[in-house]
Amino acid sequence: MTLSPTSRSTLTRKKERAATDRQVLYDVLDEAIICHVGLVLNGSPVVLPLGYGRHGETLYLHGSTGAGSLRAAAKGIDVCVTVTLLDGIVYARSLNNHSMNYRSAVVHGRARLVEDPDEKMHGLEVVTDHLTPGSWQYARGVNAKEFASVLVLSLDLAEASVKVRDGGPGEEPEDVSAHDIWAGVVPVQTTFGEPVSADYARVPVPAHISRGRDR
Amino acid sequence: MTLSPTSRSTLTRKKERAATDRQVLYDVLDEAIICHVGLVLNGSPVVLPLGYGRHGETLYLHGSTGAGSLRAAAKGIDVCVTVTLLDGIVYARSLNNHSMNYRSAVVHGRARLVEDPDEKMHGLEVVTDHLTPGSWQYARGVNAKEFASVLVLSLDLAEASVKVRDGGPGEEPEDVSAHDIWAGVVPVQTTFGEPVSADYARVPVPAHISRGRDR
Repeated sequence: MTLSPTSRSTLTRKKERAATDRQVLYDVLDEAIICHVGLVLNGSPVVLPLGYGRHGETLYLHGSTGAGSLRAAAKGIDVCVTVTLLDGIVYARSLNNHSMNYRSAVVHGRARLVEDPDEKMHGLEVVTDHLTPGSWQYARGVNAKEFASVLVLSLDLAEASVKVRDGGPGEEPEDVSAHDIWAGVVPVQTTFGEPVSADYARVPVPAHISRGRDR
Repeated sequence: MTLSPTSRSTLTRKKERAATDRQVLYDVLDEAIICHVGLVLNGSPVVLPLGYGRHGETLYLHGSTGAGSLRAAAKGIDVCVTVTLLDGIVYARSLNNHSMNYRSAVVHGRARLVEDPDEKMHGLEVVTDHLTPGSWQYARGVNAKEFASVLVLSLDLAEASVKVRDGGPGEEPEDVSAHDIWAGVVPVQTTFGEPVSADYARVPVPAHISRGRDR
């Protein structure tokens, strides 16, 4: 199965950076922690950072029922969900060829408000597993009042594209021969520090948190 | 000077997370590396990751003249530029109080195509200094053909808001007394690795790169 089935999810520039393997899409979505959701509110674009989770071909988003942008998205308007991993800063000999290594997934579609209670609970589990693996089994579960206070949206991954830039700098041929300017890549990573216990925590950090994340 | 001067940049939820100090806005914009730009193309929202840079009250964006979304933004349509720093993953005793520590800046406005050559070159310098401090002085400069091939957009920071969540978990009172579930924060950071030289690089990594970034 390949990506980019529609015109708005087909890259028009730097097409060599388009990944066509669906696994690349999954990997980007599974590795990143937050997404940026774009929607149109009162005629203007709005972009908000949100947590999310993926299960198969479905992206789940969640948030408070008090969030106006989520309530708007729940009405079935077009959204664009973008997830970006910055992997490196690319220094070329020329300023114009300075660049970034990154992997970026863009998903277009209409989000659906998840109303079925079983699916809603499943969506919450997917989002929880993504942000805090292990917490769904470990922490105190969602009670009825809390369940009612959250919105869960689902978005199909049918219309998605992934753009990847990796490797070393691109150079103009004349720059390779003419200068002694350094060129290369500074890798960029997201790293997770030692857990900091709340002052009221009376138990040691559980293994599912202390062993770190599978990244 | 405070933030949030208009209705669309005034937070409607979790108002206690709104920062009113303009320095917080600058700090978020200066520390992050990429932004997510939202705009409306053919009626649908589109969110794209871009490099940027800040000078005073102006955000500069740049990209290729071949990028349709940038050409659209250059026509003076509404854009929303969001910059998010993820600072921590917050584990509470209840799933519902799991959260993230973050700082997020949202800027609304109409981007302006920078046409004056001096200001355009200045915008390129600002964007370069943001991504690769020191490169503007060190690397081979922009020639006329390259200069013509890039678009520089400017966006005023007049209409901006910043949302910050920090500190430990929030808990329901009954969770603090009733359980022995661990709670706390796992810090999240963006880290920069050792520079990897291109195979044609014949000089050592220069000090402005090897000493790392001021973060």
